[in-house]
Amino acid sequence: MNNFRIKGFRGAAVAAGIKYEGRLDLGLIASDRPAVTAAVFTRNVVKAAPVLAGMKRMSRSDCTTSAIVANSGNANACTGNAGMEDYYSVCSEAARLLKVDAAQVAFSSTGVIGEPLPVDRFFSALPDAVANLSEDGLVDVADAILTTDTVRKVAVRQVEIDGCEVTLAGMAKGAGMIGPHMGPPQATMLCFIMTDAAVQGRWWQDSLTAATEMSFNRILVDGDTSTNDTVYALANGMAGNVPISDETPGADMLSQALADIMKDLALQIVRDGEGATKCVGITVKGGPDDYAAEKVARTVAESPLVKTAFFGQDPNWGRVFAAAGRAGVDFDPDCVSLWIGDVQIAAKGRGLGPDSEGQAAKIMTGREFSLTLDIGMGKGSATVYTCDFSDEYVHINADYRT
Amino acid sequence: MNNFRIKGFRGAAVAAGIKYEGRLDLGLIASDRPAVTAAVFTRNVVKAAPVLAGMKRMSRSDCTTSAIVANSGNANACTGNAGMEDYYSVCSEAARLLKVDAAQVAFSSTGVIGEPLPVDRFFSALPDAVANLSEDGLVDVADAILTTDTVRKVAVRQVEIDGCEVTLAGMAKGAGMIGPHMGPPQATMLCFIMTDAAVQGRWWQDSLTAATEMSFNRILVDGDTSTNDTVYALANGMAGNVPISDETPGADMLSQALADIMKDLALQIVRDGEGATKCVGITVKGGPDDYAAEKVARTVAESPLVKTAFFGQDPNWGRVFAAAGRAGVDFDPDCVSLWIGDVQIAAKGRGLGPDSEGQAAKIMTGREFSLTLDIGMGKGSATVYTCDFSDEYVHINADYRT
Repeated sequence: MNNFRIKGFRGAAVAAGIKYEGRLDLGLIASDRPAVTAAVFTRNVVKAAPVLAGMKRMSRSDCTTSAIVANSGNANACTGNAGMEDYYSVCSEAARLLKVDAAQVAFSSTGVIGEPLPVDRFFSALPDAVANLSEDGLVDVADAILTTDTVRKVAVRQVEIDGCEVTLAGMAKGAGMIGPHMGPPQATMLCFIMTDAAVQGRWWQDSLTAATEMSFNRILVDGDTSTNDTVYALANGMAGNVPISDETPGADMLSQALADIMKDLALQIVRDGEGATKCVGITVKGGPDDYAAEKVARTVAESPLVKTAFFGQDPNWGRVFAAAGRAGVDFDPDCVSLWIGDVQIAAKGRGLGPDSEGQAAKIMTGREFSLTLDIGMGKGSATVYTCDFSDEYVHINADYRT
Repeated sequence: MNNFRIKGFRGAAVAAGIKYEGRLDLGLIASDRPAVTAAVFTRNVVKAAPVLAGMKRMSRSDCTTSAIVANSGNANACTGNAGMEDYYSVCSEAARLLKVDAAQVAFSSTGVIGEPLPVDRFFSALPDAVANLSEDGLVDVADAILTTDTVRKVAVRQVEIDGCEVTLAGMAKGAGMIGPHMGPPQATMLCFIMTDAAVQGRWWQDSLTAATEMSFNRILVDGDTSTNDTVYALANGMAGNVPISDETPGADMLSQALADIMKDLALQIVRDGEGATKCVGITVKGGPDDYAAEKVARTVAESPLVKTAFFGQDPNWGRVFAAAGRAGVDFDPDCVSLWIGDVQIAAKGRGLGPDSEGQAAKIMTGREFSLTLDIGMGKGSATVYTCDFSDEYVHINADYRT
């Protein structure tokens, strides 16, 4: 997507030289009105300064946000008290330049862990960012937050609520250290959602939490949950609708659009996973319950042997069975069936032979396909999205410092 | 090791053409006397026919074994009832040729999952194997069980017990699908231990179970627990000592030698991990208890980002911290310290800078080093051994069918 606008939101990005010279690495989003804010943060025990500070900020009821500062190149993680001080000094400077209260500024970082944030570069670059804020600048922010990503990740939806046209847009980054496990008030994925809808705060947070569970919390590249994963969702109310809460018409429509955008962005992350050549949706059916089904799906999705078989375009159902069997969920191996796309390659725990495997192998030459495993226990089901594991993944991560 | 002998044990291997032509793939170990047998098998829910049949066999008290048949190239896993029938027909044929009872024969398989066992090739090859049995042939069995392994894995110890010289020897295979989780009567690692010591059955099983926990259950290559992992330990009593049990002199010495051999073999597996260029012992100290420490060590040891950093020889402590933080064990990130070898690179949750990282990077150029993480909670500690994650791992597993 080349451009998108949402009423009352402006964006800008600059090359601040945070890690590399000459690339956009500092983004700024500003809302003309304080926006009702919902957020989820990583559940990793090791939390970056922007996550700790963000959680503190979100603990206040009715948190509103006028601006988000976001940078790539430095995660401000494992940086101790100095990292917290750096967080707040950048927020203060942005607030001063934007003429808003410092408490109105959110700040998210992604990049190398354990290096001091080069605050001076933020201070040098922020005036330009503020000066360049424009309705057409949001897409530049989407570029500035990328690290090992190869493509910009943006999604936009429009819905009519209460007679008002409402726009919902989101941007995300993430290619490695992707195994998000987020909760309120707790992905290195970053995601910023903006809407001009008017919303009630509690309803907005509940909607974000639910959408996170079925989107970012259901994807993985390497399974390494980051110290910095963050989603901020800002609703500035400029569409003019009656604020949406549980009982308001349009609530389902907006929460569905939110869920839809977040799943879209989550899948964009998997497709752009480090070194990835395939995006695979792994569905486990027949689980004793949904939770158990998710556990099996996640174990299959994380298995290096399954992921390298995807790269090799090999319908190696034995590796899938072996991974499922170590998930910690009890099932009868003789009742397990497996499909690649709509081609069944195993039934009752046994392979169906070279013909079906040949058809499955053909499906696996595509960039996207599904794998469905029925473990024959009950009605529980879950889908987890993963990518393949290529030699390129190794090259990227042996050379790049997260 | 080029050769080893143990009193009363003979071995032979033949090229049976089970998967590839012209390589040893069928091994036979025979004991002149029925040997007291202990065993542990994979805890994967999906268990290969030789594991299911082996568990059944071991459920009889005082199980003794006169022969082990072992093959590579075909795992006889996910093969249903036909796989069980194939298991028993090979055991029967081996028993007939060896003139022992079929119940005296154990049979272990490793290789591709989900293909029917080519029983006719076993039948054609077994007479040669029996005819070639010799005291010097055990080392050939160690070769016949290899799959993606690049080196033979053998370990031998001698101890004097009760005035008798006792020999303990073991062979193992395994390079991929290595994340053993075995228990009694429950690794695709295979390991066969032989000793001429006389032992009491229950004590022998307890010793094997304890040794498994601190050896094979503490290593991983890819973390993928196999459907076929098996350790058989045979004690034929031909050294002439008084049978060893809890209260017998020499019990500690023999169980220590057993533990020692199994750790030696387990580390040989990690060193020969698929595509591995490094063997790293990951020790977590300061855990609330040993179990929690192991959980953290295992999560770090399995992290693709940590393993690719090992390949890149990058002392990337941020990735180690991030992996530890998602292990499901609570700790204070500001109390965490990290060492590579004896070089400390992080203290109190922060990096110690380029000098220490430079020294650590130098240590990481070696093939073996240690990583020690102190999470500052208590006195729990555990060590898990892992290898690095190289582009070669991906090539091996995108092309090879497990």
